[in-house]
Amino acid sequence: KKGGKMKFIVKDIDLITGGALIAVLSESDAKEYDFHTGDRIKITEGKKQETAIIDISQGSRVVKKGYIGLCEELLSRLNVKKGDVVSFSLENKPVSVFYIRKKIQGYELNKNEITTIINDISNDRLITSEISYFVAASYMRGMSMNETVAMTKAMINIGNKLSFGKKIVVDKHCIGGVAGNRTTMIITPIIASVGYIMPKTSSRSITSPAGTADTMEVLANVSLNIREIKKVIKKVNACIAWGGAINLAPADDKIIKAEKEMNLDPEGQLLASVMAKKGSVSANHLLIDIPVGKGAKIEDYSKAERLKRGFNVIAKNMGMKIRTIITDGSQPIGNGIGPNLEARDVLWLLMNHKKAPIDLKVKSIYMAAQLLELVGKVKRNDSITFVKDIIESGQAYERMLKIIKEQGEKITNPKDIKLGRYTFDFVSRVKGKIKHIDNKIISSIARSAGAPRDKEAGIYLYKHVDDGVRKGETIYTIYSDNKAKLGFAKDLLKKTNGGVEIRIL
Amino acid sequence: KKGGKMKFIVKDIDLITGGALIAVLSESDAKEYDFHTGDRIKITEGKKQETAIIDISQGSRVVKKGYIGLCEELLSRLNVKKGDVVSFSLENKPVSVFYIRKKIQGYELNKNEITTIINDISNDRLITSEISYFVAASYMRGMSMNETVAMTKAMINIGNKLSFGKKIVVDKHCIGGVAGNRTTMIITPIIASVGYIMPKTSSRSITSPAGTADTMEVLANVSLNIREIKKVIKKVNACIAWGGAINLAPADDKIIKAEKEMNLDPEGQLLASVMAKKGSVSANHLLIDIPVGKGAKIEDYSKAERLKRGFNVIAKNMGMKIRTIITDGSQPIGNGIGPNLEARDVLWLLMNHKKAPIDLKVKSIYMAAQLLELVGKVKRNDSITFVKDIIESGQAYERMLKIIKEQGEKITNPKDIKLGRYTFDFVSRVKGKIKHIDNKIISSIARSAGAPRDKEAGIYLYKHVDDGVRKGETIYTIYSDNKAKLGFAKDLLKKTNGGVEIRIL
Repeated sequence: KKGGKMKFIVKDIDLITGGALIAVLSESDAKEYDFHTGDRIKITEGKKQETAIIDISQGSRVVKKGYIGLCEELLSRLNVKKGDVVSFSLENKPVSVFYIRKKIQGYELNKNEITTIINDISNDRLITSEISYFVAASYMRGMSMNETVAMTKAMINIGNKLSFGKKIVVDKHCIGGVAGNRTTMIITPIIASVGYIMPKTSSRSITSPAGTADTMEVLANVSLNIREIKKVIKKVNACIAWGGAINLAPADDKIIKAEKEMNLDPEGQLLASVMAKKGSVSANHLLIDIPVGKGAKIEDYSKAERLKRGFNVIAKNMGMKIRTIITDGSQPIGNGIGPNLEARDVLWLLMNHKKAPIDLKVKSIYMAAQLLELVGKVKRNDSITFVKDIIESGQAYERMLKIIKEQGEKITNPKDIKLGRYTFDFVSRVKGKIKHIDNKIISSIARSAGAPRDKEAGIYLYKHVDDGVRKGETIYTIYSDNKAKLGFAKDLLKKTNGGVEIRIL
Repeated sequence: KKGGKMKFIVKDIDLITGGALIAVLSESDAKEYDFHTGDRIKITEGKKQETAIIDISQGSRVVKKGYIGLCEELLSRLNVKKGDVVSFSLENKPVSVFYIRKKIQGYELNKNEITTIINDISNDRLITSEISYFVAASYMRGMSMNETVAMTKAMINIGNKLSFGKKIVVDKHCIGGVAGNRTTMIITPIIASVGYIMPKTSSRSITSPAGTADTMEVLANVSLNIREIKKVIKKVNACIAWGGAINLAPADDKIIKAEKEMNLDPEGQLLASVMAKKGSVSANHLLIDIPVGKGAKIEDYSKAERLKRGFNVIAKNMGMKIRTIITDGSQPIGNGIGPNLEARDVLWLLMNHKKAPIDLKVKSIYMAAQLLELVGKVKRNDSITFVKDIIESGQAYERMLKIIKEQGEKITNPKDIKLGRYTFDFVSRVKGKIKHIDNKIISSIARSAGAPRDKEAGIYLYKHVDDGVRKGETIYTIYSDNKAKLGFAKDLLKKTNGGVEIRIL
């Protein structure tokens, strides 16, 4: 292979890869110098160096002989523009590829090997299919606790961090899969109002009708940078921000993207992903919620128990206090599903409005109580009453208003929340009792109606499991901003019986 | 997800993917219609339909709102051009993705599932990382014989085929990894001259200094289409053509590309790959050569034995007669390494020239004898003498001249073969006996000198293992067409002691 340095003229190919750094050569240069798609080159410009992956332009129009087409990321990292001359030389595959291969072959990786892989993923030194191989190996070979802990720590070290000295820092995480279930927006103001720091970073929805970040965004700005998050927390003890804006554990998103292609969820990766995000914000008192049940993300208890053990081992290893609870995930929690409908539930609940969803209130109180026991604020026998009082006295609502204000207030009155103007009532054709409401199907219908992109879209449930229903009574209403989307949601509802099973009485 | 059909204006993005069919949308359209990178769409134009994979252009210059950028393959398959309007709708992932997931989870796949995967790979319906997942699963979960046979048959059915009615059709295959070793070009004319059909398709080099196709190309044209191959065989019983020109087993190249990323070689894939190519040319009498030894592709006998059993099972299942031989792969075979140098060896051998390499002659005679025993032409005790006579009488050379002529003659006289004008003699610094010549290192040095792209480049060996060598005596000469490349080869030679171990006497 080539050892010499070659000089080429830069062409701007106007491509943002969002991943591996791509450099495009003409087919004739590739043949001439024996380059192949996927080869790595080290591009040098002054004192800057970047490793790029070769792609070959087979037409003559995109990249001509003597030119090198660079993606936007490379142009910016190298600080070069169209017409500049850069030199480059062939580089070997990064050593992390050999470590991934070792994992494929069934060997356990050591801390250094795991760290190298995570760093290379974070720095876009691996191509998509190499990351897929890593995910495949993690899934099929499994990851040991040592590997998982090493991955967690590597993910923390490569990303941004929040730190708060030796203070108690509280965090919570839910494995997901339950529609509604917006407990974070209840628990966070409770914890903050008692005086503990809770730097909550949440995700936007990927496959659900709303993530906490999408719902919080109805009430306030969530795209805060590190500096803004620190400022908000300094004033009101807590934030509810979008984690994606602040580059915590950057390898994680890329690994998750590769997992989604095959709908895989290797347990080691899941554990590392969650714990890295908690470690990045210096959480030291942590509550993990694992909802289990038919239609939830995790349907069997043995898997939940295994995850629970995993979380506990990693937390211990990282010096965190943890409680992991396994909760009922067999139906939606709360009545609203979709950003606006959920935000309205949250405000009603904090304001002690009569329409506040009871199930969401009970669960949020239980979880906040667990956390306050964990930090040593209250004893087990008093914790529920203590938290209930924080909500019912208006103390939690007051703190939520402060958080909203500090993050850039949008809405604080539930009456200001708009709902989709096109609606469809899903009506029971029989008299009976609700037997099951399927989270997966409900989520799909709400997404078809436009959630989470259309914040006004979603579902409002009037019924939960074990509620009686009369013939002709509405079980839920679908809201949408768009007639065609409401049509898609209705089509899906018809195919799936609306995701609701009724025992006829 | 969207169910409706959308209409967009075609933009030609001047991209030849050589793989998955890519369609590019603007970021704003992607957001508007909830499309993500990797989503599939079905594009319709008149009666033509193609499934494409979405990529998102984050700049505004490449693909603007309302436009859809199509790769060259899609433009041609849909028969559309810039400015045309096409409609498309969202499509689910192909079912083969779920079968790959099933394999990842550890289930054995049935014939239908394997066939679907192979068809989707062949038709560019899977993206690179999905193929990588399939390769990873095949490697880590292993493939059963039923799966391997199903894959072999699926690969044959989706590609082009050669058929010769009920005639005896002979073929051979070498697992590779031995420098030189150009037995095919000796065996094929022998078999053809005795009256059997041998439709030999060979590969070009990927990682070696020459493939059979590269070496044969020195003497004749090898890029024959199916019709030309049939015509040549009809006249002279055999051909020695490049398999890549005729789309036999098209899934294979794509799977091999995914394997190369991790340098994996799942045994099931290897078996299916070889046997599919043999099945595609209707071979029914087959010789497989598995060279084993230090520095070869396969270094341990247990793996060779396992492969041998695999080949024999699949051949039986496909109704083929087979012999699988395990041979010495611990050093190069023949003296020339690189297309021209190997072609010269072949001609010298067929012409009974005094410089003909003895080791190549002995091995080729042994292999041709095995094949003639297998087809029932000669008994075991007479076979070696029979074949030796075919070479020494000039009958094999005469047949080779006919094959060369029918394929488009370039060179038939070894004196017309040019060698690289820059040379370097690798000289022994000690008196001793050659203990080892490493195939991997020799191949790397020959490639650094320019082989196989520069046909005149390569290595000519004066010594083999167990030969004595004097101090100052040349062990081999490197040939190159380019001074810089000769420099690279010399650098590598210095780092590796030339790949030669000498026992000092």
